[in-house]
Amino acid sequence: MARLKGFEKLTSVDDALGIFLDALKPKRLQLESISIEDAVDRVAGENIAAPTDLPRFDRSAVDGYAIRADDTFEVTQLKPHTFKLTREKIVRKGYAREIWTGNTVPEGATAVVMIEHTRKLKNGIEIIMPVTPGENVSRKGEDIRRGEIDLEAGTRINAYHVGLLAALGIPEVDVVRKPQVAIISTGNELVELGKAPSPSQIINSNRFVLSGLCQELGAEPEYLGIVKDEEKDIRAKIVEGLTKADIVITTGGTSVGVADLVPLVVSKLDKHGIVVHGVAMRPGMPTALGILKRKPVFVLSGNPAAAVFGFEVFVRPTILRLLGVQSEPRTWVEARLTRRVAGALGRRVYLRVKVVELKGELLAEPVLAKGSGLLSSLTKANGYVIISEDREGLEKDEKVAVHLFSPIAKEG
Amino acid sequence: MARLKGFEKLTSVDDALGIFLDALKPKRLQLESISIEDAVDRVAGENIAAPTDLPRFDRSAVDGYAIRADDTFEVTQLKPHTFKLTREKIVRKGYAREIWTGNTVPEGATAVVMIEHTRKLKNGIEIIMPVTPGENVSRKGEDIRRGEIDLEAGTRINAYHVGLLAALGIPEVDVVRKPQVAIISTGNELVELGKAPSPSQIINSNRFVLSGLCQELGAEPEYLGIVKDEEKDIRAKIVEGLTKADIVITTGGTSVGVADLVPLVVSKLDKHGIVVHGVAMRPGMPTALGILKRKPVFVLSGNPAAAVFGFEVFVRPTILRLLGVQSEPRTWVEARLTRRVAGALGRRVYLRVKVVELKGELLAEPVLAKGSGLLSSLTKANGYVIISEDREGLEKDEKVAVHLFSPIAKEG
Repeated sequence: MARLKGFEKLTSVDDALGIFLDALKPKRLQLESISIEDAVDRVAGENIAAPTDLPRFDRSAVDGYAIRADDTFEVTQLKPHTFKLTREKIVRKGYAREIWTGNTVPEGATAVVMIEHTRKLKNGIEIIMPVTPGENVSRKGEDIRRGEIDLEAGTRINAYHVGLLAALGIPEVDVVRKPQVAIISTGNELVELGKAPSPSQIINSNRFVLSGLCQELGAEPEYLGIVKDEEKDIRAKIVEGLTKADIVITTGGTSVGVADLVPLVVSKLDKHGIVVHGVAMRPGMPTALGILKRKPVFVLSGNPAAAVFGFEVFVRPTILRLLGVQSEPRTWVEARLTRRVAGALGRRVYLRVKVVELKGELLAEPVLAKGSGLLSSLTKANGYVIISEDREGLEKDEKVAVHLFSPIAKEG
Repeated sequence: MARLKGFEKLTSVDDALGIFLDALKPKRLQLESISIEDAVDRVAGENIAAPTDLPRFDRSAVDGYAIRADDTFEVTQLKPHTFKLTREKIVRKGYAREIWTGNTVPEGATAVVMIEHTRKLKNGIEIIMPVTPGENVSRKGEDIRRGEIDLEAGTRINAYHVGLLAALGIPEVDVVRKPQVAIISTGNELVELGKAPSPSQIINSNRFVLSGLCQELGAEPEYLGIVKDEEKDIRAKIVEGLTKADIVITTGGTSVGVADLVPLVVSKLDKHGIVVHGVAMRPGMPTALGILKRKPVFVLSGNPAAAVFGFEVFVRPTILRLLGVQSEPRTWVEARLTRRVAGALGRRVYLRVKVVELKGELLAEPVLAKGSGLLSSLTKANGYVIISEDREGLEKDEKVAVHLFSPIAKEG
């Protein structure tokens, strides 16, 4: 009797991802041009070079007077200097010209003295402190030089990038189109939210979780519904997903019972379709990774936490590659583990933890979860710790890296 | 001559925020009911108690056979045990009933043996390992108990929360409505994106940056346009903003030159309207905080970086309070500063840095920015370090807390 029928050999997480991506060779998706107003959180498709210097001219950084700095070199509180006001285009020796923040510094002037540092006289102004050349002047090209790359391909665009594009007069930007993700839920036990479940039924929650995770990454989920554990129904949905989307995700039907139908269906659609089946991870062991028509097919467990970590480990990096994002690891913080936890030799364990800040120190409290089915283990946690394959467990007070999926709360 | 006309006394950052929030007494906004499908990133308005146990019944966590655990206590590889199959509602001694993941565990059965751990015989199954009571069973209420709070008021809802709500059969959730933020740009030098700027004009970029920052927090920005540095124009826009929005933000016109119009306008609308003017921070010194008709009016600098940190320090916590979010500090990481940087005694300095991960260590590279006008200082950085008022600067190799606004890139 095989102890793990179908899973005699589990593939390590690193090997599974490596083998899968090598086989898939994901290509960045096409670009689309959008208004910069809609660009936050999208991914830049091309390097954008500044079409102009910024500032475009030497500009005053303050409200005040444009002067020649060398006029002020010997000025002190005891030896103030008086300037006559001018409105001419050129500022000559002994003259000052009123200037507002952002105004182009007039020819001849080499500095701007702040209005607060002057005293208005009847026919001019008085200055009591010297200014250095360039003082209060924003030099042409100081922010960014014409031709300099102001937005690199593969950058996740934030509010600041949009501001810089606007300042440079760029109203539209080419971004990578959103990957379309078809989500299929399998399982005779599932019922849609809104219908009253019978005692043997479970409301389908995975589709909401996976949709949310897709959106968070800038992908566009499309839910294709629940299918029964029937080969032909599953096949029809996967084929539909492949025509509609860039990525297909299924949940359920991955364990090695008689209901192990999804990997079977993928294999029947293409005998090389299943690239990996069974990963040395917990939760998420029964995950299968497939490729059909050059598109990734992620066959995730029906257990909520197992589906989430299958997504985290395999779907997330694939979506990022389709988006052309170079590197976007989850933010991690170092925290002190509040108690001992067991690992699983030979498997990579994803331990859900709640990180709190207590008196300036970060503490990681393991969220105990029996099995991989518990949704509350995810809502109570704000991140996870990886227990590597060669560790029997982690010690109390051990410093661990916590990968965050939501903010850290302050306590105490 | 006053060196800082109007700013003789700068208020410390902590005092400014404290005084302002004490005067404003921000109240959480009204709730609105939305579908859980749209709830990701919204803020829960009320505690939600689970209307049912989850799981609602004892369920099988695997595909296999429901049995009485005590039937297996003496089973070993050498002494396998054979079970007859039953389809009856009650599993009696010596019997096993086929069960799939998620199915309710039938009466009498106390455990489920995984199908992989059994061998099918002609008239039953053979088991070669004992199981413990409760093995492979998800107990009723194990995930969440009826009446337990599954979503706390003030929680930023994520994909996992939505999944849990769905599993509990909750299709709609009360969330705090999005704070409306009116954004007004002031300055004679400003021109809208799309129009060709003359040499003395600057394209208005602040409104894009502020809109993006509002959206990131779950507020809804409305841009009211550019106004000239004219008292009556500014007044009209602020009044419009107060009728339309929960928060008004202006940029520009805050320095103490003749263009110091916005604080003046606020003061004329209500002589107690300006609560703070001039903050001991860099950038952002000329920030003013006002209250009109019990609504916050943030008078931010026109300099991009100064506007951003005025937003970070004052607008962000105010929006979070209107949303009823208890605690949502930016994620911070500890990093090693790559070089010495100057602070400014008596002022809190917000130093923009780029954090990179190099061989497992986090390094914070200061992004040098002359003045507070540089947008590129924000796009090159992924976070900031606070240099406190009592520090002349930070040393090379000093460990610093970096508050992140975008992910950390891996290098080397």
